[in-house]
Amino acid sequence: MTPRKDLLDIASLTDAEIHFVLDNAVPFKDLFKRSVKKVPTLRGQTVLTLFYEASTRTRSSFEVAASRLSADVTHFDIETSSVTKGESVVDTVETLEAMKVDYIVVRHKQAGIPELIARNTHASVINAGDGFHAHPTQALLDAFTIKETFGTMEEHRVVIVGDIKHSRVARSTSLLLRRLGMKVAYLAPGSLMPRDVPKDVTLLKNWDELWAWKPEVTYLLRVQMERQREPFFPSVGEYHKIYGMTDERLARVRDQGLYVMHPGPVNRGVELNDNVMTYERSLINQQVENGIAVRMSVLYWLRPGSLK
Amino acid sequence: MTPRKDLLDIASLTDAEIHFVLDNAVPFKDLFKRSVKKVPTLRGQTVLTLFYEASTRTRSSFEVAASRLSADVTHFDIETSSVTKGESVVDTVETLEAMKVDYIVVRHKQAGIPELIARNTHASVINAGDGFHAHPTQALLDAFTIKETFGTMEEHRVVIVGDIKHSRVARSTSLLLRRLGMKVAYLAPGSLMPRDVPKDVTLLKNWDELWAWKPEVTYLLRVQMERQREPFFPSVGEYHKIYGMTDERLARVRDQGLYVMHPGPVNRGVELNDNVMTYERSLINQQVENGIAVRMSVLYWLRPGSLK
Amino acid sequence: MTPRKDLLDIASLTDAEIHFVLDNAVPFKDLFKRSVKKVPTLRGQTVLTLFYEASTRTRSSFEVAASRLSADVTHFDIETSSVTKGESVVDTVETLEAMKVDYIVVRHKQAGIPELIARNTHASVINAGDGFHAHPTQALLDAFTIKETFGTMEEHRVVIVGDIKHSRVARSTSLLLRRLGMKVAYLAPGSLMPRDVPKDVTLLKNWDELWAWKPEVTYLLRVQMERQREPFFPSVGEYHKIYGMTDERLARVRDQGLYVMHPGPVNRGVELNDNVMTYERSLINQQVENGIAVRMSVLYWLRPGSLK
Repeated sequence: MTPRKDLLDIASLTDAEIHFVLDNAVPFKDLFKRSVKKVPTLRGQTVLTLFYEASTRTRSSFEVAASRLSADVTHFDIETSSVTKGESVVDTVETLEAMKVDYIVVRHKQAGIPELIARNTHASVINAGDGFHAHPTQALLDAFTIKETFGTMEEHRVVIVGDIKHSRVARSTSLLLRRLGMKVAYLAPGSLMPRDVPKDVTLLKNWDELWAWKPEVTYLLRVQMERQREPFFPSVGEYHKIYGMTDERLARVRDQGLYVMHPGPVNRGVELNDNVMTYERSLINQQVENGIAVRMSVLYWLRPGSLK
Repeated sequence: MTPRKDLLDIASLTDAEIHFVLDNAVPFKDLFKRSVKKVPTLRGQTVLTLFYEASTRTRSSFEVAASRLSADVTHFDIETSSVTKGESVVDTVETLEAMKVDYIVVRHKQAGIPELIARNTHASVINAGDGFHAHPTQALLDAFTIKETFGTMEEHRVVIVGDIKHSRVARSTSLLLRRLGMKVAYLAPGSLMPRDVPKDVTLLKNWDELWAWKPEVTYLLRVQMERQREPFFPSVGEYHKIYGMTDERLARVRDQGLYVMHPGPVNRGVELNDNVMTYERSLINQQVENGIAVRMSVLYWLRPGSLK
Repeated sequence: MTPRKDLLDIASLTDAEIHFVLDNAVPFKDLFKRSVKKVPTLRGQTVLTLFYEASTRTRSSFEVAASRLSADVTHFDIETSSVTKGESVVDTVETLEAMKVDYIVVRHKQAGIPELIARNTHASVINAGDGFHAHPTQALLDAFTIKETFGTMEEHRVVIVGDIKHSRVARSTSLLLRRLGMKVAYLAPGSLMPRDVPKDVTLLKNWDELWAWKPEVTYLLRVQMERQREPFFPSVGEYHKIYGMTDERLARVRDQGLYVMHPGPVNRGVELNDNVMTYERSLINQQVENGIAVRMSVLYWLRPGSLK
């Protein structure tokens, strides 16, 4: 396995790298059962978070992952100062490069910014979500969760429901699951279905077609209400009725023993209703826990020493 | 002493627990005189702060306390993101539970939220102030400060002055001091006196009655100017004149050797004037220092291992 | 060398102290080449940042410096709470003093606030910029960068270009460089030139005079667009044309082998243009890296044990 500096998207990963990250997340997760949930692996390394888009959950997940590896974490608080002073991304990166930080975890509303940053620094850059492009650690934690649930990954049938078009989660997770041998289908309103759907993805028009496809996992996407400038569906209630996990659909999901996933945070009453949150085969909280283990594994994989 | 998971209010504490926290705060405070003010007690534990109401002082006090116990501290920055994404408290807690944090320190403007959170997580929940309900670590640091000052706690006479009705500090501190055997009186404008004053609290109408009651400690409450929607008193100047610690009252306080306490931050010119801040029997700064020691003691008391 | 508690400005430093800080920054900078960029020097010490003016870069630089010395860092987040509650600086300092923090790193838009704070606390106070007064760690990192570049410091010729009048950087850096034996000149618009220019500073009216003066370093000041209430120059484009490092001037700078410095963050198209950022003798990023090493050296110099 050739050492690598950055995690920018799923497409550029080799199979060996994917399996390295997924396999090493297992012992990191075991750590959480211990009283001292910490190892000295990254002692003396600095992990800097650079979030141009606020995300308490993802940032905290990386922060806890880094702390459990004994790294020092610094938030470069981009909203309160440099941006208002009109500093460009490239100038910020030159500064961080000069500060000799070891990792930069970046989120930006524009696709490609993490790659731009990676080209301008010796630090390991981890894409924590860029525009509609990629969110690779989400994909890795999703794959890890499915593998953990079924014991294997091949051939499982996962349907992704919702705003596929604007979802970097859908893009990254769908790609990774297919590479790992799974069958993926999309259910989305016409206005929220991307034009360039890969050939090996099955397109479903409605829940009747979804049931007929016989999925084992239903992956509900978050409706990004704050990102939507033009309305892609009539109303939130309408969305829930047509694409959401209603009580009726949940009854059938339970009946067939399907698993439910969601990247969080959920919009109750939109993608799903209250009863889904307590459904015994909901993997939503397991995804959160696995997020920390998988991010520890990613930080470990990209550790500075590994490049030598 | 039965192990316990959470600190939600004073009412639910046993005497043994109260004394455990107060007694163990002593060696933690001694630590502050050393050059290395740190012990490895909570190494590998994660303390997460979840403040729905901003409070630099209380949050910093917990943060420093946790650091001095070698815990890792993460701020779940609730204002900038999840709330604007419409996430409910319960969903946030499910996330934190999945992250396997060890402590959640929570402040919320609504009473009962810490208890709701505690029921939904294995983490130890510490109430850092909820609505008009409780602020138990403030009460414990107040009791500790009085004990430290007098050597004992029984029978001392403490008068609490100000907006009793809207004060979780008054509620928690008054309750704890009375349980520890002290005599408590309230002096408040009629509009700021609660309806359900406990029977063993003496009600005072004005400073003449206060002097006649012969207190040993005058505890001035903060006027929560930012929380007051309707005016409960004519003006700030008026409040100072009628209920504040003016120069005249300070002269008498000094004359009688009374101690002065305040939970901070003070509104100079409202609850008290400049001269109180340098009064030799003001315990206000001692309360801040003791706050860190007492919060270390609370974190130690609730440490994960203690439940086994 | 008499032990000292605070770093408030350059004027109050002895020569021995200046050389102590500059000399000790060398081994700290060497540390950055190692995989574990950390030493246990300040383990158990608490460094508190108190920024009344936002500055992501300076705050991060101090935070990384403190972490690399194994200190605990706490941000006293002054904007979100205490100030809105109307707390005064003096009351905040009394609180921090009571918290027994070891260092307070303070930035304030008003000159003299760090000194006021230093008088009211046992903690070591480091001025991270106060009004138009001083920014001593910037001056020290600038001097360190020049010494590192030339091998020596004496007699080098440094011209400072821009808004001298409102620049604490200019004030502190100019003073330190002259004390270290360098020749300093100012080039500024009349409206941005201070009235009390020291006698040993050469005043230049335009770039022709600048070339004639034969500087070895051109130090471009940041145009503080956010601080300017009244316009001191017609427009940003005008400023660039008259005082900025244009392509024509850069060609001559390159031709003569001059170095370029800037305190950051840069306003591209104002003080300098894009080509300066990649100019081989630009020391701008080196200044950032040295900032961390010099701040580590300052924290080390003022370490609590040194006062005993």
